[in-house]
Amino acid sequence: MEPGHKPLVDDDGIGAGYSYPRTPSMNVLLVLLGVIEALGVAAIAMVCYWTAHYRGGFAWDGTGQEFNWHPVFMVVGMVFLYGNAILTYRVFRDQVKLGVKILHTVLQIAALIFSIVALVATFDFHNANGIANMYSLHSWVGLIVVILFALQWVLGMSTYLLPFASRWIRTLFMPYHRFFGLVIFAMSIATCLMGLTEKLLFTINDTYSSFAPEGILVNCLGLTLVLFGGFVGYIATREDWKRQPLPEEQPINMSIE
Amino acid sequence: MEPGHKPLVDDDGIGAGYSYPRTPSMNVLLVLLGVIEALGVAAIAMVCYWTAHYRGGFAWDGTGQEFNWHPVFMVVGMVFLYGNAILTYRVFRDQVKLGVKILHTVLQIAALIFSIVALVATFDFHNANGIANMYSLHSWVGLIVVILFALQWVLGMSTYLLPFASRWIRTLFMPYHRFFGLVIFAMSIATCLMGLTEKLLFTINDTYSSFAPEGILVNCLGLTLVLFGGFVGYIATREDWKRQPLPEEQPINMSIE
Repeated sequence: MEPGHKPLVDDDGIGAGYSYPRTPSMNVLLVLLGVIEALGVAAIAMVCYWTAHYRGGFAWDGTGQEFNWHPVFMVVGMVFLYGNAILTYRVFRDQVKLGVKILHTVLQIAALIFSIVALVATFDFHNANGIANMYSLHSWVGLIVVILFALQWVLGMSTYLLPFASRWIRTLFMPYHRFFGLVIFAMSIATCLMGLTEKLLFTINDTYSSFAPEGILVNCLGLTLVLFGGFVGYIATREDWKRQPLPEEQPINMSIE
Repeated sequence: MEPGHKPLVDDDGIGAGYSYPRTPSMNVLLVLLGVIEALGVAAIAMVCYWTAHYRGGFAWDGTGQEFNWHPVFMVVGMVFLYGNAILTYRVFRDQVKLGVKILHTVLQIAALIFSIVALVATFDFHNANGIANMYSLHSWVGLIVVILFALQWVLGMSTYLLPFASRWIRTLFMPYHRFFGLVIFAMSIATCLMGLTEKLLFTINDTYSSFAPEGILVNCLGLTLVLFGGFVGYIATREDWKRQPLPEEQPINMSIE
């Protein structure tokens, strides 16, 4: 927390706008945001190249080509879009809050849709090929993640986007919304790591241990996801990067002070 | 943050003692601590039962029985002891700070020693059986976790336990010490989940998908680790459970106020 600056909170219990001048710490934030986007795009490129080049590409016909949508859509949805949704309040510090909220909501529903299509691709592939569903630790943790995420999305929207919730409920629920948001994000990255591990052992078990290029690529994808998650978590939790209220968003009783 | 209570920080940038009366929120903390210890003990019991009953027990002879120390010691060290080390400042709120610091350090070095022995068991087993080292995503992320943990341990001890670091360095470094502490903890749980997935696919690939009891046991172990990590993360980050200075630990200039 920068000394001498007292953050103002609004009825969501979070800063409602941005009234800082650009400080050196803000420049660090911008650099980190650039690094995060580069890591996210790299992860998507790697998962696409892996599935397209090594795993036969894409289709929607019950074959392994249908399954390939699963890792691609999970990385796009539960990692890249979800991570960027977390960051909206840091990236658009100086925009009007309702707009940032709507963007946060839209990114999260896009993430949820991607993850649901990714789930359907897997179940479809399993059912078409007589493979059992929901037996692995990856599937157990993954299903819990998607259910928690859907709950979080419904509760978050009904509390913060729709106008029904009272101010004290918004304030009371905010620490939980934030905490579960980050926990679900961390769990979704852990689920990706298990999924990558599974897929490599199902497909290239014979050559993985002799450092096959496919294995190295997927390992690098896993590390990229971990780095992406670490940077998002850092930006989301650093105190002095929390969004501060815009001058026009400050409650009247505070402007009297 | 309880309204009207202004937390005092000392030269570590964290609360230095506990001067709260027991509030309802403190009782919730105690209940959660009980749940965490129960989950931790359950995880250790499950990993021991798995390796002893299904995987042939323990030895130190280069066989799979030597490998079995790896999951057991990682769960004990990088999850149970590490998680409890994070919690020391919450559990022993009303104890003198130096004692809590020493306990935090002792638990972390115990965790580090367990994890190093666990690594040796794996490398020993691999080398004795002509299995390649360090090819899997589990091993890549896992080695990074242990290296980051060792670095964090050295930096933490030299900054906060030894008397050389100046007050502003202690204050400056504390948010990073906390953030990396939790990131390393989350990464170690994710590494466990990958390790469990790997071991099941190496051993019971044929029966895992027909819901073999061993697979269900290990899946439950994985979920227990996730729950343990989630609760530890919650207690460690909830603002109003941070340790507050004991009356005698408050700096003189603050007691004048």
